Amino acid sequence: MLDAEIISSLQNARIKNLVKLRNRRPRDRQGIFIAEGYRAISRGLERGVVPEEVYFSPDWFLGENEPALLEDAKNKGATLFELTKVAFEKVAYRDRPEGILAVFKQWSHQLDEIELSDSPFLLIAESIEKPGNLGTILRSADAAGVDAVICCDSVTDLFNPNVVRSSTGVLFSMPTVMTSTRETIDWLSKKGIRSVATTPHAEDFHTAVDLTGPIAIVMGSEQFGLSETWLDACQQQVRIPMAGQADSLNVAMATLVTLFEAVRQRTLSS
Amino acid sequence: MLDAEIISSLQNARIKNLVKLRNRRPRDRQGIFIAEGYRAISRGLERGVVPEEVYFSPDWFLGENEPALLEDAKNKGATLFELTKVAFEKVAYRDRPEGILAVFKQWSHQLDEIELSDSPFLLIAESIEKPGNLGTILRSADAAGVDAVICCDSVTDLFNPNVVRSSTGVLFSMPTVMTSTRETIDWLSKKGIRSVATTPHAEDFHTAVDLTGPIAIVMGSEQFGLSETWLDACQQQVRIPMAGQADSLNVAMATLVTLFEAVRQRTLSS
Repeated sequence: MLDAEIISSLQNARIKNLVKLRNRRPRDRQGIFIAEGYRAISRGLERGVVPEEVYFSPDWFLGENEPALLEDAKNKGATLFELTKVAFEKVAYRDRPEGILAVFKQWSHQLDEIELSDSPFLLIAESIEKPGNLGTILRSADAAGVDAVICCDSVTDLFNPNVVRSSTGVLFSMPTVMTSTRETIDWLSKKGIRSVATTPHAEDFHTAVDLTGPIAIVMGSEQFGLSETWLDACQQQVRIPMAGQADSLNVAMATLVTLFEAVRQRTLSS
Repeated sequence: MLDAEIISSLQNARIKNLVKLRNRRPRDRQGIFIAEGYRAISRGLERGVVPEEVYFSPDWFLGENEPALLEDAKNKGATLFELTKVAFEKVAYRDRPEGILAVFKQWSHQLDEIELSDSPFLLIAESIEKPGNLGTILRSADAAGVDAVICCDSVTDLFNPNVVRSSTGVLFSMPTVMTSTRETIDWLSKKGIRSVATTPHAEDFHTAVDLTGPIAIVMGSEQFGLSETWLDACQQQVRIPMAGQADSLNVAMATLVTLFEAVRQRTLSS
């Protein structure tokens, strides 16, 4: 078996700290976060993001690939810790633990670090509140192939356990900038990138507006939609036609629909 | 306050039964299910679906509209029960209870009861496993304005608490048929409705295929995609272009993207 320190006491300082990391303050103060489960951790490793520590408990393993993943992480510099079944249950965030959990260093990207493609394609999300929505938005952005996601005045942090989980590892690959609305508007203008606001009050459907060329799709918060600042700053406003209940599409679903209309137009025009 | 029997004992037979209804067998045997929270219950009432019983606990209320909703339910024939804070916590499915929960009668629709529009537009989902996905699929179908959703050989039942919750009340308005693949294929053929399969192995993008006219969009299960039976039966196959990780779009997200491309084409052609 793998050479690793074994931890069985629930009073162990590392165990206690893993539990603490569910909260943002200790997470930010220590500059680390947790990714749980085989898929997320292997996505990190595939992208060259090596965890500092990996905690595992074979009693919880779902498949047969976990030892190879642990070996890989260890060879790349991670420290392994083996936990008893009970100790792992205590640190796991999920109802059905997969027996593997890793601690990664946090990172941050700035607007000026974004590598823009020849025809920039960006997603901007303002004041997102729910971690699950942010994670799903990252997945949608990945599937649509945007250059980067810019979160303005975000209520949730990027390293919230539910963002990590719901992004299914996209967190490790999608350039994501946490910044303010003001800085983003200035930056877009400097870069000559047109911004398109999505709002139920727009006149035009998202399918009726040109979404090709250098563009940023701008989505508002769950409760309040886009701020006046963004609505004023955007060159165009669009809405998605809604056949049913007004709230059938949440912000993550509306993001997905708008991004894939942009993909359609950009594929045709390229 | 409202005239209602007060229940405080956790041993009360009604309390015990509400907890049991989380499981499918007692739910189906009794022919009832639970909807929790203001939004879902009010959506039911708006659609003329009156609960048999409503359980409430003012200590948990989030807003000020709950008494009016209870009054409305009572006037329409529901029996009200007031629970203590602790008793409500026991029966609530959610981590943050809203203090209102209702028991509705189950229903079922058959294929022949579907009211087809002039240009039929249907969504078919095969062997969906996760209740949360089915709920989100119902929301997407509602937003896109399909005539009905047909679930073939579904693993989850329509009245699972997580379907009810994630459908945000669409359950009460969207005609949804639970049936088998075989019956559905025969019915489509009888009605002259063309079916389009979504599969990552298709040659054509969903945007390159005609999705106007009488049509059924057919989505496969989370793990296995569409069965050979469906792939053979469908007149066309389409796939969504994927820029990122192969699994960035789950079945609910792929459904949403495909439905809204159909909406775009159908709006242009009408």
